[in-house]
Amino acid sequence: MTAYRLDAWGSPPRLTTVPIPRPGPRDALIRVAGAGACRSDLHLMHRSDATGAPWPAGFVLGHENAGWVVEVGGDVRDHADGDAVIVMGAWGCGSCARCVSGVDPYCDHPERAAAPGGGGGLGLDGGMAEYMVVRDADRHLVPLPSGLPVAEAAPLSDAALTSYHAVRRSLPKLADPDATVTVVGIGGLGGFAVQALKGLTQATIVAVDVRPESRETAGRAGAHHLVAPDDTAAEKIRDITSGRGSDVVLDFVGSPDSLDLASSIVRPLGDLTVVGAAGGAASVGFGQRLPNEVSVQTTYWGSRSELADVVDLAARGVLSADVTTYPLDAVADAYRDLGDGRINGRAVILP
Amino acid sequence: MTAYRLDAWGSPPRLTTVPIPRPGPRDALIRVAGAGACRSDLHLMHRSDATGAPWPAGFVLGHENAGWVVEVGGDVRDHADGDAVIVMGAWGCGSCARCVSGVDPYCDHPERAAAPGGGGGLGLDGGMAEYMVVRDADRHLVPLPSGLPVAEAAPLSDAALTSYHAVRRSLPKLADPDATVTVVGIGGLGGFAVQALKGLTQATIVAVDVRPESRETAGRAGAHHLVAPDDTAAEKIRDITSGRGSDVVLDFVGSPDSLDLASSIVRPLGDLTVVGAAGGAASVGFGQRLPNEVSVQTTYWGSRSELADVVDLAARGVLSADVTTYPLDAVADAYRDLGDGRINGRAVILP
Amino acid sequence: MTAYRLDAWGSPPRLTTVPIPRPGPRDALIRVAGAGACRSDLHLMHRSDATGAPWPAGFVLGHENAGWVVEVGGDVRDHADGDAVIVMGAWGCGSCARCVSGVDPYCDHPERAAAPGGGGGLGLDGGMAEYMVVRDADRHLVPLPSGLPVAEAAPLSDAALTSYHAVRRSLPKLADPDATVTVVGIGGLGGFAVQALKGLTQATIVAVDVRPESRETAGRAGAHHLVAPDDTAAEKIRDITSGRGSDVVLDFVGSPDSLDLASSIVRPLGDLTVVGAAGGAASVGFGQRLPNEVSVQTTYWGSRSELADVVDLAARGVLSADVTTYPLDAVADAYRDLGDGRINGRAVILP
Amino acid sequence: MTAYRLDAWGSPPRLTTVPIPRPGPRDALIRVAGAGACRSDLHLMHRSDATGAPWPAGFVLGHENAGWVVEVGGDVRDHADGDAVIVMGAWGCGSCARCVSGVDPYCDHPERAAAPGGGGGLGLDGGMAEYMVVRDADRHLVPLPSGLPVAEAAPLSDAALTSYHAVRRSLPKLADPDATVTVVGIGGLGGFAVQALKGLTQATIVAVDVRPESRETAGRAGAHHLVAPDDTAAEKIRDITSGRGSDVVLDFVGSPDSLDLASSIVRPLGDLTVVGAAGGAASVGFGQRLPNEVSVQTTYWGSRSELADVVDLAARGVLSADVTTYPLDAVADAYRDLGDGRINGRAVILP
Repeated sequence: MTAYRLDAWGSPPRLTTVPIPRPGPRDALIRVAGAGACRSDLHLMHRSDATGAPWPAGFVLGHENAGWVVEVGGDVRDHADGDAVIVMGAWGCGSCARCVSGVDPYCDHPERAAAPGGGGGLGLDGGMAEYMVVRDADRHLVPLPSGLPVAEAAPLSDAALTSYHAVRRSLPKLADPDATVTVVGIGGLGGFAVQALKGLTQATIVAVDVRPESRETAGRAGAHHLVAPDDTAAEKIRDITSGRGSDVVLDFVGSPDSLDLASSIVRPLGDLTVVGAAGGAASVGFGQRLPNEVSVQTTYWGSRSELADVVDLAARGVLSADVTTYPLDAVADAYRDLGDGRINGRAVILP
Repeated sequence: MTAYRLDAWGSPPRLTTVPIPRPGPRDALIRVAGAGACRSDLHLMHRSDATGAPWPAGFVLGHENAGWVVEVGGDVRDHADGDAVIVMGAWGCGSCARCVSGVDPYCDHPERAAAPGGGGGLGLDGGMAEYMVVRDADRHLVPLPSGLPVAEAAPLSDAALTSYHAVRRSLPKLADPDATVTVVGIGGLGGFAVQALKGLTQATIVAVDVRPESRETAGRAGAHHLVAPDDTAAEKIRDITSGRGSDVVLDFVGSPDSLDLASSIVRPLGDLTVVGAAGGAASVGFGQRLPNEVSVQTTYWGSRSELADVVDLAARGVLSADVTTYPLDAVADAYRDLGDGRINGRAVILP
Repeated sequence: MTAYRLDAWGSPPRLTTVPIPRPGPRDALIRVAGAGACRSDLHLMHRSDATGAPWPAGFVLGHENAGWVVEVGGDVRDHADGDAVIVMGAWGCGSCARCVSGVDPYCDHPERAAAPGGGGGLGLDGGMAEYMVVRDADRHLVPLPSGLPVAEAAPLSDAALTSYHAVRRSLPKLADPDATVTVVGIGGLGGFAVQALKGLTQATIVAVDVRPESRETAGRAGAHHLVAPDDTAAEKIRDITSGRGSDVVLDFVGSPDSLDLASSIVRPLGDLTVVGAAGGAASVGFGQRLPNEVSVQTTYWGSRSELADVVDLAARGVLSADVTTYPLDAVADAYRDLGDGRINGRAVILP
Repeated sequence: MTAYRLDAWGSPPRLTTVPIPRPGPRDALIRVAGAGACRSDLHLMHRSDATGAPWPAGFVLGHENAGWVVEVGGDVRDHADGDAVIVMGAWGCGSCARCVSGVDPYCDHPERAAAPGGGGGLGLDGGMAEYMVVRDADRHLVPLPSGLPVAEAAPLSDAALTSYHAVRRSLPKLADPDATVTVVGIGGLGGFAVQALKGLTQATIVAVDVRPESRETAGRAGAHHLVAPDDTAAEKIRDITSGRGSDVVLDFVGSPDSLDLASSIVRPLGDLTVVGAAGGAASVGFGQRLPNEVSVQTTYWGSRSELADVVDLAARGVLSADVTTYPLDAVADAYRDLGDGRINGRAVILP
């Protein structure tokens, strides 16, 4: 079969021919319907060499996958041929308390996993191919309901799951209806965050993006205030919140500038969550810009039960992906468009 | 009466004579039993001038106070002459949702308070005098039970309250008995933290301090492991936690070095709380030392209901202050000893 | 002024003339815009005599009030003449930890309150008069935003607040979007519950009522399934939930029949909240109908901060009262219609 | 091997010879070190016939087991020969969200389990035999640390786990040190509850038992007040709590009398948890004895992660079983002594 494979660190991935893989006793073979192209793949492709690489090179890309089960190993009990499924992307050790609870991204023993900190498409063969093997299928597959188009569902497993996970950590601080949440960066992930916030809270939603069309997307998704990140942004947001600041700020950009803005608008006792990885960091300590007792943290992917929630929210229309599709032989175009900022929403490869 | 007053920014406070103050209708006049000398006073004393000062100079120091009620205004209903009381140190606007819930340190409208962000001893006359007025006495006084020595109770209102508040935010992450908490800096505050952790959790407690006698203090208070902050500290703590890292780290130092250590030993999904203000800051973002999804925050004082808890824990011996007392005319000695690191526990002035 | 006053237990209340009351130093005088007629008043009116009565008779009815401030005592700081306000109905001791946090309905020392367990309209003069005094005005008044009609807002202070409080206790069990909540009884309170659930969760909402028009009301408010409480109701609800049962059941009827149904449809680990007082009780113990680990509790009114939330939700249209108005001289008609089940939504008296 | 087997409903179990069982691919064969005799077994033994029985008869008793792994199936990855282990007693479907999270006792699809609502010793062969098969060993075994005697650990898997689970649900209401918790019934389970409360909270603990020696046991475990359940008990407990009532009541008896007492001493907004099954039930509704907004629920066993906690607490001495041992051929004596109330603590069979 044809697959988009990263053969070596420092050289671009390429379309190549590989054998159809075989599932082990706990695994499932999936015919891939859609595989999302993620900005984190660009980071992998642009490594100059193997120094500091998380895994050996030599794997098929694609960690955001949905498809149909075509074969299951003898010990798989919860899935059968023909099932439409979405794939948990992070595959931990499977035995620690966190993996047992379905929180593979926070596995206590990543060194015991086949690809430490990774999964299919991240150190192991992923979904940019006609077929992929999902290890430990009972833990890593979530069924898709019949109403949901399978290929378009792929971005739910990373872009939507990461956003939902970030939103969910802050729901307690958004329980009062006079709370305000600011979403910085309305791209492939931030758009899902606005949808989730709209569906799950009565908070006032402020969307910040440099691109007018992204602000419009946020407005259609239900954001109450649309703000460009210029010199007046912080003051505008303080006005919107009657001077108190935003109870929660989700920064999907993560640049020095976006985190400066985030740090200056968040309310004391609030939450600041860093989702984007554009080279910035927030400084937490006394004498810094951040007000006291703001809980600042990064966020990383989500749990199996949260993925089930995301699928459920998509099935009833609360979350909906804005998807641009590419055939497998145009996968390089997809990543080029993604790198150039020309993708609104999410690019999905259809193998 | 004699009082230790900060007359002007940039010149040291001095003992001087001031009139005995008079309480307003909602206030109480307190005869001060003990007033704690706090490291944050040193920051006030060492300001070079009024630039950037939080309040106008011209107030009696002492924001950690306990004493007896000697007179109440006509609208005070919960306290009467002769009551032994401890004083909430932060006095907010009194009307916002946070003040109404007894969380004055996080007042939404500090600009409406008599001393924004302050209280008695912080912008308004405090307890380093024979008497002090406590404004809004029904909100700012907590009764002391009869078994507790009044003067020695003073440090409960700041050193113990701040520590307890920091501990309490992390109790959910210490609910499992295999959790580990690391306390960095066993001085006037960190010692209370070890006591509170011992009393409220079954977590494994690691105490870190550069001074052997402080580590011994922590050991007597119940810490399970005592570690000097040298080059091997991080590895020792990773060993103690079987490689997982410490679920919670409370940094009572807050220097660049202590936060480096803290950032390298905290577990993914853990808590890092910065209590000390020694010029350091933790960097939160991708590509930083901190693992993913650690919640990092500063902490500042505590609430009225937490002060009631602290008094209760002290009454039953869970929290106990290690107090060195000074008469009012030796107050300058107390601050000198504090600045020189010669105080083990807490210095209390007896007016 | 004219007032609807309960002069003696065992005889019906009557319209009579009383002096305009005078506020004390912490109180406010309110010109009443609207006073809701509540089913619990019927219980008071129908007492046969003073035996077991909660308070001495001799007070104006009306515990669900909104209006305008016309005079404040000298110690009131947060309200001024002309403000549109809604009145917290329960007035506790004002000093215990619960009252201090704005949870008067759960006052630890009701025996120290002016009317133990009561408030304006419950043991003390209420709002079925041109004017009423609200004691401790800073604690018992919540401002109304300008867009909200004042008279129609009155039911927010009891019917909506009680419903919202009941909904809020169960939000953690409704966080997953595949959760189901069943509301039994869509009258003056249950309708608000459906609105709050629709606005605050993505749960599937099942509404149960014997009256077709009430089921239609629930459907318009967003309930997903409308069920008549006949012999097939339990089976229908088990089908809706794929056999698992309803995660949360809110019973606004509280009769033996409604609680039988509720007990048979609630899911293990779920919540059953009894809001209605129609003589029923749920039996909790082994060998009973209820599945294991269902948390069963009654509910009673709500807190000051929840009332602020309710006002906020009403201001943005999430909660809206279906109000039938009566002039003060037709107050007896309002209670008669209420008793006859002829009120859809809530009856409000306009003094 | 010899086994204590329930051959038919309505006739007593008997010692008989059965073949050593063989583990399937996901199972483990355990050499049993200790098997606890539980009061719930008495309920099974005393059934008059098969009517309404939860499972077909024909299984070895013993659902509270610890031992050593002697053989594992090919798909078991977390356990190996020679490991000392304790056995989760409830075996659910293994696939639903609750089973996946280790909460088998609340399996959503018990009808898909081998013994619906059961496990080893409850519908399937248990530990009152030299060997037993533990199905789905990766999910149902928890390792025992080396310092803990294996046979004596058996009661941790039911008596201690059930108690700890009941305690844990109420920890939020016991976070303030002025909270009070009352434990009714200090037998095999209640004793563990007192130990867990002592180790995890600073709450005031009241222990109620009709037997003086059980009250003494509670006192040694750290209970602050020991009360006999006579006519003055309710008043005594109200005095201990300054009239407020007990924030939490855990009733390990569950008789009509014990629940009467429990209902009359619990504080508004508190928790009442019914653990014992002696035929009583608490009535929740308006006009009942229970104060408003007490959360009343039964409790049933605990989760896998809670069992790991219990083992951890036992390893450090917070929980310790008071065990009376019997050889397998005296198992009938053990049940007779248990039924006669002659066991203090827990009876453990040593096969």
